[in-house]
Amino acid sequence: MTTRTLAELAAELGGVVVGDGATVIRGVAGIREALPGDITFLANVRYEPHLDETRASAVICSREPRRSAIPLLQVDNPYLAFQRAVLIFRPDTYRPAPGIHPSAVVAPDAELGAEVSIGPHSVVESGARLGARVVVMAGGYVGAQAALGEDTFLYPHVTVREECVVGARCILHPGVVVGGDGFGFALDHGRYHKVPQVGNVVIGDDVEIGANTTIDRATTDSTRIGDGTKIDNLVQIGHNVATGRHCIIVAQVGIAGSTQLEDYVTLGGQAGLAGHIRVGKGAMVGGQSGVTKSVAPDAVVTGYPAMPHATWKRLYAFLQKLPQLFQRTRDLEQRLETLEGRTEREEVR
Amino acid sequence: MTTRTLAELAAELGGVVVGDGATVIRGVAGIREALPGDITFLANVRYEPHLDETRASAVICSREPRRSAIPLLQVDNPYLAFQRAVLIFRPDTYRPAPGIHPSAVVAPDAELGAEVSIGPHSVVESGARLGARVVVMAGGYVGAQAALGEDTFLYPHVTVREECVVGARCILHPGVVVGGDGFGFALDHGRYHKVPQVGNVVIGDDVEIGANTTIDRATTDSTRIGDGTKIDNLVQIGHNVATGRHCIIVAQVGIAGSTQLEDYVTLGGQAGLAGHIRVGKGAMVGGQSGVTKSVAPDAVVTGYPAMPHATWKRLYAFLQKLPQLFQRTRDLEQRLETLEGRTEREEVR
Amino acid sequence: MTTRTLAELAAELGGVVVGDGATVIRGVAGIREALPGDITFLANVRYEPHLDETRASAVICSREPRRSAIPLLQVDNPYLAFQRAVLIFRPDTYRPAPGIHPSAVVAPDAELGAEVSIGPHSVVESGARLGARVVVMAGGYVGAQAALGEDTFLYPHVTVREECVVGARCILHPGVVVGGDGFGFALDHGRYHKVPQVGNVVIGDDVEIGANTTIDRATTDSTRIGDGTKIDNLVQIGHNVATGRHCIIVAQVGIAGSTQLEDYVTLGGQAGLAGHIRVGKGAMVGGQSGVTKSVAPDAVVTGYPAMPHATWKRLYAFLQKLPQLFQRTRDLEQRLETLEGRTEREEVR
Repeated sequence: MTTRTLAELAAELGGVVVGDGATVIRGVAGIREALPGDITFLANVRYEPHLDETRASAVICSREPRRSAIPLLQVDNPYLAFQRAVLIFRPDTYRPAPGIHPSAVVAPDAELGAEVSIGPHSVVESGARLGARVVVMAGGYVGAQAALGEDTFLYPHVTVREECVVGARCILHPGVVVGGDGFGFALDHGRYHKVPQVGNVVIGDDVEIGANTTIDRATTDSTRIGDGTKIDNLVQIGHNVATGRHCIIVAQVGIAGSTQLEDYVTLGGQAGLAGHIRVGKGAMVGGQSGVTKSVAPDAVVTGYPAMPHATWKRLYAFLQKLPQLFQRTRDLEQRLETLEGRTEREEVR
Repeated sequence: MTTRTLAELAAELGGVVVGDGATVIRGVAGIREALPGDITFLANVRYEPHLDETRASAVICSREPRRSAIPLLQVDNPYLAFQRAVLIFRPDTYRPAPGIHPSAVVAPDAELGAEVSIGPHSVVESGARLGARVVVMAGGYVGAQAALGEDTFLYPHVTVREECVVGARCILHPGVVVGGDGFGFALDHGRYHKVPQVGNVVIGDDVEIGANTTIDRATTDSTRIGDGTKIDNLVQIGHNVATGRHCIIVAQVGIAGSTQLEDYVTLGGQAGLAGHIRVGKGAMVGGQSGVTKSVAPDAVVTGYPAMPHATWKRLYAFLQKLPQLFQRTRDLEQRLETLEGRTEREEVR
Repeated sequence: MTTRTLAELAAELGGVVVGDGATVIRGVAGIREALPGDITFLANVRYEPHLDETRASAVICSREPRRSAIPLLQVDNPYLAFQRAVLIFRPDTYRPAPGIHPSAVVAPDAELGAEVSIGPHSVVESGARLGARVVVMAGGYVGAQAALGEDTFLYPHVTVREECVVGARCILHPGVVVGGDGFGFALDHGRYHKVPQVGNVVIGDDVEIGANTTIDRATTDSTRIGDGTKIDNLVQIGHNVATGRHCIIVAQVGIAGSTQLEDYVTLGGQAGLAGHIRVGKGAMVGGQSGVTKSVAPDAVVTGYPAMPHATWKRLYAFLQKLPQLFQRTRDLEQRLETLEGRTEREEVR
């Protein structure tokens, strides 16, 4: 079991100890569940009140001064420091060993890099290329001529269809489908005719794709996911979409065909993006928003149809006062009627 | 083939026959599809008109008096009585026999209870524990140190990742993923760094999880699903979420990280819940609602952002009259202008 | 490699060349990615400006006159002609060869048509019937007594549960689940009791079902998908739903139990339909809409709750002017107050 004194940990994480640096840390945990021996973290003000009750032996927090009964490890970026602490105290012990399971079906002409691990009941088709240390866990499917870059990790039941390309150090969670056909049909005489989807999917390096997410292959050319982009579970990415680098796409988002995201775009959960639009660099789309037209760089949009968040908030505030507005209008009508009556009488007089 | 007279059925289901108790029942069916020999049920007023046309030989219904050409079986809870009738007439005949398929890959140190059934191409990893009568159908994956309680049933292609715990009598439908990594990344110097998700998922007893639903493992500690909770298809449950007991979570709902549901919460289809909030006991969230803050016990909320349903209905009613309000305001402006002109003339006079 | 002169292609596609009919075409591509030798297409006005910059050697377009530096192939339906061009230049070369992989587990009493292809680690259960030329790719599961019609194609990891019926020439993408249990529970004494779902799913001919989409089996009777209907990824179709023929159901749509679609219904992405309603022939539901009651034939509905699109647009236009309305009301109140004061003085006078 890994142990560190708080002082040692501060040195590793680039932080400062407030309190007893000799405190011994043996694990990491959330602030509510932590036990003595654990270090926890504070990165969300919502959890600040739990600081008084936590049983943790120390807490990673920002450099702002604060009162605490337990020692603090102050750092610039508490969540990042916590991430590093997890890596220190909870090394990954479940990584499958290299080797090809006897039940795996690997085409003779597949190219396998050094130390690849191919799990039971996996299939690697003809011409597929797996970089060094790639892991394909149980029941994985790597299609013909597909390529997986070095150190890419496929959890069980992932499908990467033919000709698709996944970069290095990617993580594909269970049930991910890369390269399913795009949704394209030409209507003729009352029937839909399938437009063959003969493009592929090209995924950059350091991309993570959540469980049961689907990324469709392009009609022609490629659907593209930029380096460092992180995609959550049950997301749908349509044919010929292109995301920039370092985008964050939260669960259950849907992006329709040919839409483009520039770098550092964040899409909140369940947001939907229409096809053929462009979302500018650094833009943020709120959860459940419906984006029907292009979004400027750094814009923050919400609602349906998505509008600048400030506009949405203003509209929503007015909306809440709508019942009062009806009352005010009724009052105005009565007062005006009274006044009209009076004025009439004036004139008659 | 099972048969019962209506009188026998009434005795089994705790009901009363209105009509011929000697009527022979041989099957169950919906009110529109039922054929002679079937018993059907009425639990939704919407289907009341179909009572005159159904070809069923009898109908299970509430104890309220009603006219009917076919015999009635009156009970307290028609849907529950129908459920029991289905169990009587349509026993499950597809349950896989106990035994381990020769193609399954089961770690030598996995603990298997009595009469487990492990289907073709399944994988049970090292240290996994399967209770008595557990079924893992074709292509199932049970990770290292994972545990499945007695009588739990995994349909094909289910993934339960390492260290996750599933209680007794649970049903996991095809494509379910339990224990995928939570979505957590620390931003540093323009890149997202993965926060290892070293917690697990703990699922209680009598839980049902719909096809292709994903339940993420906790960052640390556990994502928890309470006893008796029923989850529909394509639902996303984020890391460190905790649901109470006997919750109903309809298809395509998304629950962001660390949110808590108390017991008997119902979430309508496609609803989205923000992270770090709490939904009180017995609360109901309408379909497609966006819940951005905590919900009180027994509250019924709708809309985006979710608000008490009564408030939403009131707002919506006003909203529908918004065009009229604009017209009334225009009228007021004209009348006022007229009046102002007149008053001016008065004063001039 | 296939080549055609533009004149030859025009003859095959029923079009007219404007420009050099001797132009040699060797491939198809999108207007932005096309290279010399490619033919591209214009079916969306949004891409019209790209015509000046494309490197394509020719473009398929409508019969309207237009100026172009490259030859035109004018047709009635450009998208349909493009579909045909793709079939000409990019024939499918990845179709698995007929045969049963030695690792597949096929019940002795399963009926297999001529030239079926059953991939590695697939399972075909007892009594299943596969028509001629059916393909079940790696890790497929076809349940007991299930039936797949001629030329139907299952990509990897598809589950078709027992007794379900899929027609001819259907395409099921990776991770599709046909016949998971419907979501039905009877509440009694504070616990939910599962209503056994003993119906099945019946899918017509020429149906396509996107990756990780789930179609639940009926409680009793059948969930039905009509001929020619095309379903995108991550769609949820509840028990006892019936869709008509030639419907289009875009990604992440959810349809609750017992709802019926007539023919030629289009549902936009992420739309949600309540249970027990009917959507009329040719109706269109906008993306993210929440349909809470039946929709008339040919209606176009949007929003939550879904309303005629024209009504929604009008409401939305008024909504955007809501801040102004508050200002106008404030102005009215002030003017009225002034006037009331003046009239009072008049009367006093």
